[in-house]
Amino acid sequence: MKSAKFKSTAARNAEIRSAEIICVGTELLLGDIVNGNARYLAQQLASLGIAHHYQTVVGDNPLRIQRAVAIACERARLIIFTGGLGPTPDDLTMASLAEFFDAPLVENPAVVVDLEAKFARRGRQLNAASRRQAQLPAEADVLPNPVGTAPGVIWEARPGLLIMTFPGVPHEMKAMWQATAAPYLHNNGWAKGVIHSQTLKFWGIGEETLASKVRPLLDLENPTVAPYAGEGEVKLRISAKAESVAAANALIDPVAREIRKISGNDCYGADDDTLASTVGELLQQKSMTLSVAESCTGGGLGEYITATPGSSRYFWGGIISYDNRVKQGLLGVDARVLERCGAVSAEVATAMAQGVRDRLGTDWGISITGIAGPDGGSPEKPVGLVYIGLASAAGVQTQKHLFGSDRSRDRIRQQSALSALNWLRLQLLEQR
Amino acid sequence: MKSAKFKSTAARNAEIRSAEIICVGTELLLGDIVNGNARYLAQQLASLGIAHHYQTVVGDNPLRIQRAVAIACERARLIIFTGGLGPTPDDLTMASLAEFFDAPLVENPAVVVDLEAKFARRGRQLNAASRRQAQLPAEADVLPNPVGTAPGVIWEARPGLLIMTFPGVPHEMKAMWQATAAPYLHNNGWAKGVIHSQTLKFWGIGEETLASKVRPLLDLENPTVAPYAGEGEVKLRISAKAESVAAANALIDPVAREIRKISGNDCYGADDDTLASTVGELLQQKSMTLSVAESCTGGGLGEYITATPGSSRYFWGGIISYDNRVKQGLLGVDARVLERCGAVSAEVATAMAQGVRDRLGTDWGISITGIAGPDGGSPEKPVGLVYIGLASAAGVQTQKHLFGSDRSRDRIRQQSALSALNWLRLQLLEQR
Repeated sequence: MKSAKFKSTAARNAEIRSAEIICVGTELLLGDIVNGNARYLAQQLASLGIAHHYQTVVGDNPLRIQRAVAIACERARLIIFTGGLGPTPDDLTMASLAEFFDAPLVENPAVVVDLEAKFARRGRQLNAASRRQAQLPAEADVLPNPVGTAPGVIWEARPGLLIMTFPGVPHEMKAMWQATAAPYLHNNGWAKGVIHSQTLKFWGIGEETLASKVRPLLDLENPTVAPYAGEGEVKLRISAKAESVAAANALIDPVAREIRKISGNDCYGADDDTLASTVGELLQQKSMTLSVAESCTGGGLGEYITATPGSSRYFWGGIISYDNRVKQGLLGVDARVLERCGAVSAEVATAMAQGVRDRLGTDWGISITGIAGPDGGSPEKPVGLVYIGLASAAGVQTQKHLFGSDRSRDRIRQQSALSALNWLRLQLLEQR
Repeated sequence: MKSAKFKSTAARNAEIRSAEIICVGTELLLGDIVNGNARYLAQQLASLGIAHHYQTVVGDNPLRIQRAVAIACERARLIIFTGGLGPTPDDLTMASLAEFFDAPLVENPAVVVDLEAKFARRGRQLNAASRRQAQLPAEADVLPNPVGTAPGVIWEARPGLLIMTFPGVPHEMKAMWQATAAPYLHNNGWAKGVIHSQTLKFWGIGEETLASKVRPLLDLENPTVAPYAGEGEVKLRISAKAESVAAANALIDPVAREIRKISGNDCYGADDDTLASTVGELLQQKSMTLSVAESCTGGGLGEYITATPGSSRYFWGGIISYDNRVKQGLLGVDARVLERCGAVSAEVATAMAQGVRDRLGTDWGISITGIAGPDGGSPEKPVGLVYIGLASAAGVQTQKHLFGSDRSRDRIRQQSALSALNWLRLQLLEQR
């Protein structure tokens, strides 16, 4: 194969050289699959410090592929294609590119040899359809495929415009990226250090309140700080562009410290931390133990806590008291209190938290009782009303939450469990 | 661009009523998240018979958002935006569109009232940043957000150009699509018939085995039958193209019946059914009740069961016996059995299932004890070893599973809970 040394191109241009990702495949337009390739390539470009501003998805259609190329040529200097490289009639990426750039396809003998060897290893003969995969633009370098048949190209289709093509099969694309494309971009002046990020995670503060608190930092240019909201939590992503991960972290760390200082205990962790893992850390620091009594969450709080490996060091277990008989029999909630106040009440949350702490003999006991919906609400006790109890040696406290009767059952249960963990986190921090 | 060969008026005409999806968010360009919204919208457009030929991803940058809009206007008559609708300074979609189409934003009083009510339900006051979400083009119709704060618009920005905007938070986008956008497209002549599907769900049978059993049906053309595998379960999607949902169902139903006949009890339900909801149905048919004793799943089984609204009719609760002290104290597992057999053993699973059934007084008791990893395995008891116990009036049985030491902690816990539910399902079916 003609590609031991890739052509170094006229890429010495001082102009900003951004990339564009074009994913080819009708299955993406039908929603049959999620576009994991775009995410992978986006992460990889970021890690090389190569900016990209647009991603395009287009079907297996030559005219539309060419229209997408025409647009991308105007706004990027590196165009990365995935999809449409295989042996079937709807694999049209290479033919569309060749025609667009007026660069006829010719059979690459080295690729034919490689294909024949790959087919032989599977006990098969190279057929005409698969041989078509060796048809490449004469000027293009081969981007070898170490794990499949269809090769890609690294091709300076016009002066200052670099094209890379990959098959759509994710593990082939990744292997080709790692083995050849990433080193090429590194060695040919494309990689400008790295873009590295740290994500700070928050609970108990709205996205807009947090944004207004850290407002001046949102205007920083390197690192940049950007808020985003997930399912019920808020995050700030701090991204730095630098020579190395270490240099990026040197830019990120002071900003992260500043944000943590501004936001105080609203920030519960970073990156892979969860509210449950943070609570686990704090419990272990104090050698304390935890149990739970769950009604409307039905085990979801225990599930969150035990998602953290090693949680057996501080979590002993709990009681799922979905039915009132269980609240009475296993948690010792007084039948008269249940009758008088109802199962969803501060009084019952108190008795449940105290009951589970006593019966399991842990330092802390959390209880949750509420109305997750969609039915069971009333004007006085609407869907989304949840009481959380927190028992410790100091006694029992309760919190009342209104998570909103417009919220889904899943969401109300999730918010209940995470709010309970956050409350315990704050209590543990206060005692420090 | 030199592509005369591919240019055709037919292709141009085909695009006249086509749609384009534009996803706004720097997090997509950084590869922080996979673009699940594009997939969802693509599926939805397909199900309405609305062609779409391009998807674009662009960052939170007004100029680039506007450039993407300019391109989309040239090739689509329906542009669907997700992302950039929230209350923070980098939520720029609406302002960028307003500027592009020269349509000043004005505060929509009805949206302000809605926002105030939503904030009030959460015990908060509407602040200025969130109030900005009520700034919409004067001519646009509101696309209500039933589950979050940021509304979207349905807006004929130019004659013959329809724009719809959605927040990037997936469950909000989906709720808005279902409640308003899809019916709108249906009622306004966008939908060309329907593509309607029914998905049959299976447990305990591999994708290939199932496919070979129903092999002749996989060649059908309308409806089509396609297998696909999710996390640990297998599905068959039966899709029909027809004038209406009723006409599509008339094509689907005989095929669904045929598949159910062929697959017997391996098929546990369709569409929104879960193993837990199916078990719930069967328990209610028999007026029977259930309790659970969970070790390695830590509450996850209870969480699955109680995800079904109305599960309080048959699920009484359970005991999360993460620590051995809880297995002894609350479930009555003999300390000598724990010592001799270990917590992960058929003997302990038996005692846990019997213990929870006795103590809660239910017809059925399920127990789960296992090694979810990543640590805690040994040659005799590897990560992924899980015992399930099932107690009823007839006695206690146990099952031993090896879910694989290469599987993740999350996956082993999920498989444990779902396998337990499936076992109970089969037992309930046998007793019918």
